[in-house]
Amino acid sequence: MDPSPNEQNVLLESMAKRGGVQQTTNYQSLNGRTSNCSSTSSDEDMIDIAAETPGDYSHLSDHSQGSTNLMDTQDDLPPGIGQYDDFHTIDWLRDIARERMRHRQLVKKSKEGLWQKIKSAHDAWSGWLCVVLVGCAAGVSAAIIDVGATWMSDIKNGICLGRFWFNREQCCWAANDTFVTKEDEGCKQWFTWPELFGDFNEPMGGEYVISYVMYVVWSMVFATLAVMLVRVFAPYACGSGIPEIKTILSGFIIRGYLGKWTLLIKSVTMMLAVSAGLSLGKEGPLVHVAACCGNIFSYMFPKYGRNEAKKREILSAAAAAGVSVAFGAPIGGVLFSLEEVSYYFPLKTLWRSFFCALAAAFILRSINPFGNDHLVMFYVQYTNPWYLIELIPFTLLGILGGVFGALFIKFNIKWCKIRKSTILGKYPIIEVLGVTLVTALIAYPNPYTRMNTSELIRLLVRQCGHEDENDLCDYQRNVTNINVDLESVFAGPGIRTALWQLTLALIFKMVITVFTFGIKVPAGLFIPSMAVGAIAGRMIGIGVEQLVVTHRLAPVFKDMCKTGQTCVTPGLYAMVGAAAALGGVTRMTVSLVVIMFELTGGLQYIVPLMVAAMASKWIGDAMGKRGIYDAHIDLNGYPFLDSKDEFTHTSIAADVMRPRRNDPPLCVLTQDSMVVEDVEAILRDTEYNSFPVVVSKESQYLVGLVLRKDLSLALASARQTPDGVVSNSVLYFTNSVPVTTVVGGPSPLKLRKILDLAPITITDQTPVETVVEMFRKLGLRQTLVTHNGRLLGIITKKDILLHWNELDSQDSENVFFK
Amino acid sequence: MDPSPNEQNVLLESMAKRGGVQQTTNYQSLNGRTSNCSSTSSDEDMIDIAAETPGDYSHLSDHSQGSTNLMDTQDDLPPGIGQYDDFHTIDWLRDIARERMRHRQLVKKSKEGLWQKIKSAHDAWSGWLCVVLVGCAAGVSAAIIDVGATWMSDIKNGICLGRFWFNREQCCWAANDTFVTKEDEGCKQWFTWPELFGDFNEPMGGEYVISYVMYVVWSMVFATLAVMLVRVFAPYACGSGIPEIKTILSGFIIRGYLGKWTLLIKSVTMMLAVSAGLSLGKEGPLVHVAACCGNIFSYMFPKYGRNEAKKREILSAAAAAGVSVAFGAPIGGVLFSLEEVSYYFPLKTLWRSFFCALAAAFILRSINPFGNDHLVMFYVQYTNPWYLIELIPFTLLGILGGVFGALFIKFNIKWCKIRKSTILGKYPIIEVLGVTLVTALIAYPNPYTRMNTSELIRLLVRQCGHEDENDLCDYQRNVTNINVDLESVFAGPGIRTALWQLTLALIFKMVITVFTFGIKVPAGLFIPSMAVGAIAGRMIGIGVEQLVVTHRLAPVFKDMCKTGQTCVTPGLYAMVGAAAALGGVTRMTVSLVVIMFELTGGLQYIVPLMVAAMASKWIGDAMGKRGIYDAHIDLNGYPFLDSKDEFTHTSIAADVMRPRRNDPPLCVLTQDSMVVEDVEAILRDTEYNSFPVVVSKESQYLVGLVLRKDLSLALASARQTPDGVVSNSVLYFTNSVPVTTVVGGPSPLKLRKILDLAPITITDQTPVETVVEMFRKLGLRQTLVTHNGRLLGIITKKDILLHWNELDSQDSENVFFK
Repeated sequence: MDPSPNEQNVLLESMAKRGGVQQTTNYQSLNGRTSNCSSTSSDEDMIDIAAETPGDYSHLSDHSQGSTNLMDTQDDLPPGIGQYDDFHTIDWLRDIARERMRHRQLVKKSKEGLWQKIKSAHDAWSGWLCVVLVGCAAGVSAAIIDVGATWMSDIKNGICLGRFWFNREQCCWAANDTFVTKEDEGCKQWFTWPELFGDFNEPMGGEYVISYVMYVVWSMVFATLAVMLVRVFAPYACGSGIPEIKTILSGFIIRGYLGKWTLLIKSVTMMLAVSAGLSLGKEGPLVHVAACCGNIFSYMFPKYGRNEAKKREILSAAAAAGVSVAFGAPIGGVLFSLEEVSYYFPLKTLWRSFFCALAAAFILRSINPFGNDHLVMFYVQYTNPWYLIELIPFTLLGILGGVFGALFIKFNIKWCKIRKSTILGKYPIIEVLGVTLVTALIAYPNPYTRMNTSELIRLLVRQCGHEDENDLCDYQRNVTNINVDLESVFAGPGIRTALWQLTLALIFKMVITVFTFGIKVPAGLFIPSMAVGAIAGRMIGIGVEQLVVTHRLAPVFKDMCKTGQTCVTPGLYAMVGAAAALGGVTRMTVSLVVIMFELTGGLQYIVPLMVAAMASKWIGDAMGKRGIYDAHIDLNGYPFLDSKDEFTHTSIAADVMRPRRNDPPLCVLTQDSMVVEDVEAILRDTEYNSFPVVVSKESQYLVGLVLRKDLSLALASARQTPDGVVSNSVLYFTNSVPVTTVVGGPSPLKLRKILDLAPITITDQTPVETVVEMFRKLGLRQTLVTHNGRLLGIITKKDILLHWNELDSQDSENVFFK
Repeated sequence: MDPSPNEQNVLLESMAKRGGVQQTTNYQSLNGRTSNCSSTSSDEDMIDIAAETPGDYSHLSDHSQGSTNLMDTQDDLPPGIGQYDDFHTIDWLRDIARERMRHRQLVKKSKEGLWQKIKSAHDAWSGWLCVVLVGCAAGVSAAIIDVGATWMSDIKNGICLGRFWFNREQCCWAANDTFVTKEDEGCKQWFTWPELFGDFNEPMGGEYVISYVMYVVWSMVFATLAVMLVRVFAPYACGSGIPEIKTILSGFIIRGYLGKWTLLIKSVTMMLAVSAGLSLGKEGPLVHVAACCGNIFSYMFPKYGRNEAKKREILSAAAAAGVSVAFGAPIGGVLFSLEEVSYYFPLKTLWRSFFCALAAAFILRSINPFGNDHLVMFYVQYTNPWYLIELIPFTLLGILGGVFGALFIKFNIKWCKIRKSTILGKYPIIEVLGVTLVTALIAYPNPYTRMNTSELIRLLVRQCGHEDENDLCDYQRNVTNINVDLESVFAGPGIRTALWQLTLALIFKMVITVFTFGIKVPAGLFIPSMAVGAIAGRMIGIGVEQLVVTHRLAPVFKDMCKTGQTCVTPGLYAMVGAAAALGGVTRMTVSLVVIMFELTGGLQYIVPLMVAAMASKWIGDAMGKRGIYDAHIDLNGYPFLDSKDEFTHTSIAADVMRPRRNDPPLCVLTQDSMVVEDVEAILRDTEYNSFPVVVSKESQYLVGLVLRKDLSLALASARQTPDGVVSNSVLYFTNSVPVTTVVGGPSPLKLRKILDLAPITITDQTPVETVVEMFRKLGLRQTLVTHNGRLLGIITKKDILLHWNELDSQDSENVFFK
């Protein structure tokens, strides 16, 4: 179990404390005590000593012996070393340099013998092997979750007598028709709860009441179980996980967020939460589950497990696999990972993500938990094409989707803030139970909210056939009309009923989802928002259909009604509406369209989908610039430097760097004039994680950067070895030690090797937008600011985010890294 | 017409001269004359004066008046300014900073009134508008080319009497069956040449000879026209254009390469070359055509036309549109642009590319040049699924594709080198005519090489139906066998004939394509390599089919033969083979698979396609690391820093920078001690395009970087104005001018404004791999190397490429930028 607080809110607060408060303390203690040092790369860092500094290659190439030793050191790393601290930012450049060096060593060694060759080959293949394993694991997890969720959802209605572990569909296997709206035909073994409890014959009598009560009771049981499991075992398992995965992929460490406990508990509670009938989906959390698989498997390959930057390549691929299994959409998954989740996505990761997503989809298809032949979830096959004029309602759907998305995000964030700041946040279990109760009570009477949300979507996007008998397909087919060739024409009374119920379902879904997304159970947004869009789309579709049918002789509609065909396909509108609503909430475009057509198999509907997706994105962006995931990242104050945002202000590096104008000067070391005692005092008095080294106090020309961890380890080991290093030994970061010092006096301490001679530097006049660009693209953790070669200050990622937030005049109180 | 030499070879040589020789001259003249200056950013640069240096934002934000003036200056730029010189590298960081500043000005101005608001809105929309226009133009171009190529191809066989502008299909419109192998049934108006010339009744007589002769004659006519047009009007129109577009997108300027003449001539000659029956496709060149459209339309929007970095966003989108119209594959096009062509691909470009590709596909579909309802080119609908065991032959196809790709690249590059170095290169017209003659003579007798290559592929990937009467579908269907339920079983004699002819066609295509790709006509590789793969695939598919049919009772094959279905679909093998061969040649993976399934509509065959594509890529990469486009970039010595290659050596920045160890010192300016005369002498004596400014000769601490163009303009204007600047006026790059200088003496010249105060710097110990990373990701043109704050040297992109090539111990003689 993760040694973390029981509650995410509490966790985030503790994160805030660890980051912000600690640093504040630093400043104060520092100002009071030494007052000659200011913030260096403050609350960052803690890189392992084996992470050779990038600047050290010169000596490496000269004496390969030394570097081989270094390799051995890395191989024999004690556990825990080689990792970053929790809630810290990783240094991409350094990690990638480390990986390259490791690889170079391996190539060099591979000439030594067969065993080394095999090792090298294994290393080359391990990336592919790892993603295949991750894909398979994600596929298996998804299959288990699918099966479990279906069984639990069915348990709410009844049970398979004799074989209780079968769900309704399996129980009715012998019967041909398992369509959800046809109740219990040909199912001998399946008993609904009223059937089991007695024989009710009176009209609208106890049968309905018992069903209702059992539905509510089961929902409450599932919800209680889910929230208790999350609270007790894995607090990180709640929510959709995508905002956190985005943050992690951007180079942040949240230990345990992708651990085995999270995986296990999230998988179980996901089934429970879905079965509880809450307005949430299991598609988003599946991305989290897949990322957990990615994290766990990456530890099987030291290349990935011990290198945070490399590990993120696997995690990107895992995210693709997550979407791939969630929707059966491997290409959409890759694009989702690229467009929405990933931060650093080189081509190699693209290929591996594709492979991973494919493996996952393939495994899931082989297990075949849905029991049908189609790989796709909502397979549709419309018989008629769409017409150019229909782009008008499609655009309307897109606009509605954008409006819905923007409003949803606004209200959801507002509600989350209320939860955070009021007493509500202290009783998450009660909140979950309350939401569940309300949902169950309101949902049951309406058939469209009672059924599983993904089944609702499947129903809405379907084209009506002759055999369909549900309300949505109640057309007056055999009218004795002059136009005898028309297939589906005027709506029957069933459609009117359906429209009423759909309107109520739409309002209910829209409202309840705002309150549901954010409660302490696993909760995805894809399916609920698609459901909202599909309902709206189907309703508009029916409206357009009736309009066309009524005016079918008007010139604009003349082409649309052909013999033996329906004039307009309302199912297509539902599909477009689903895409529009999802696009409005998440602001995806390309990946959304690809997911939608992989989901429905409708390659020819790419233009309507695209029109709706773009309209939805534009309207959504105009009403509020962030998608739901970015809004939640912002809400939680994660240190995420969004690659989509543009820094529009005109400040320069000097405005951002620390020390600020009235702060004490930067805490630096000199290259050849400080003694061990001084440095030990600095280490004792400050908590900064790296120290710039300059030529001398007087001429502060930058020599390099030394990490706190390296420095303290080097000092400690020098003290222990009998080299005669004492408190007033001089530290030398230079290449050569002057002879005068060696003769007489205490023996010097040479620290050139631990010095990073190639820190990234910028001048004080560099515009912040360029600095932001460098941080984003190079994955920096800090950069040193110079003026005419002199060191002025230091900028970390958090300094930039803070500065940005200040300029945007947002309240930066919720930024936990303060 | 482009004012450029008539011949690409000559062009490349002239490029070599302009780059290399000029610089060599620099060195010599310099060493002889002043001997106190070494190479600075050498043959780079020439940025316009309005391109405000990124470091200048401080004064911008202080006095908005000044910045507004600056805006006006930019608006009133004389033509030609604001652009880079030909064969120079662009500076992404600077261009993007320039764009941001422009945007900021626009936002500021937009508060001034309605007109400015409209201007601002137009600016915000112009990106989308531009890509839509580009997409439409690409779609229209593709449609015209398709129509023209079909007509010309048909002209080789005959003519539509009375309406000669109709192609065969349009001519036979009344007849239902226009399938290519059924000759002239129901076509009253269409006359083949023998029919036109006389009545031949004798068996195998003159009819065949006349057809043959007319075929060869027309081919020669088309080829002559094509090569003459290319030679006379647009030498850049030859080849596929993709290597050059890759180079351009990576930030290189090749003026006229994407101009209107290239567009026009390439479109026309593409039709001619395809119609000449050469073994080439029009799909690759369509990317070039679309990129030309992108370039031309970008000039309609100053935001893109005047900013090379921004223009490349439009070009990336245009490349996607090119593939989109070439294959009717919008998503594949976007991924192709991402995976293969583009260099800098932010998310915004992804969306715009998608939009552009979609617009292009939509327009093409509306024009409908193929005359069928399907958007896709090789629409297939296989009736049976694939089986797991078939992955073995699919993998085999992948391996064969990889081997073919690697060998093809090797031989093609070898032949191109021979062409370059021998007399052959001097007679491109004769070469083209020779290749055409050989192709026509050999191709005609074999029906599979005689037909249009894309029709051949369509034929090969098709599933045999009952009505198909061509050789490939000659199965003994109605055998009186015990297994009466089997549909297609043993091969008939027709299949044996087909196999023979396909073998010959395969060998012919493989050999002739090596010689064809690189001749001086527009030539794409997609279709020929897909044809090779499809032939091999179909043959292996027939083999597997016969194997399964013969041993259909064996346990492994038992499941595969079901009642009323074919056991194995050879067409699927052709599809997989085509993907494998194309993958082997281009090393695409994800985009290839997506293109293939958009091309065929077979979403369920993604796993076989992926397996083949991955196998092909792995085998290809093992046999030779570069794809055909990268190999041609390498062959032509374009300055392209491939983002896929990894720099594996251990050198540091000090090894790469100029001046080298024994060179004269770097040519620098001092911030406050040089007089106008000195600087004018340096400007006269050197040709470097930028000069670092240091504190003083003695303490070379870096202050900033000044561009040659800015400096000489500033000096010239100072000389003209009556400020009293004379030859011994002191130049001040500092903020404040000492009072002592102002009183008495000549008046000083203040140049702070033209100084770039934020050049990117690195330390001398920075590993080259980090430098490469910075160049790639930040799009640098040069970086300054410092040691402890002191300036040591300068590194340009070309220095890195040269160093890399030296280390790879390749002959760097073909690197024209020496």
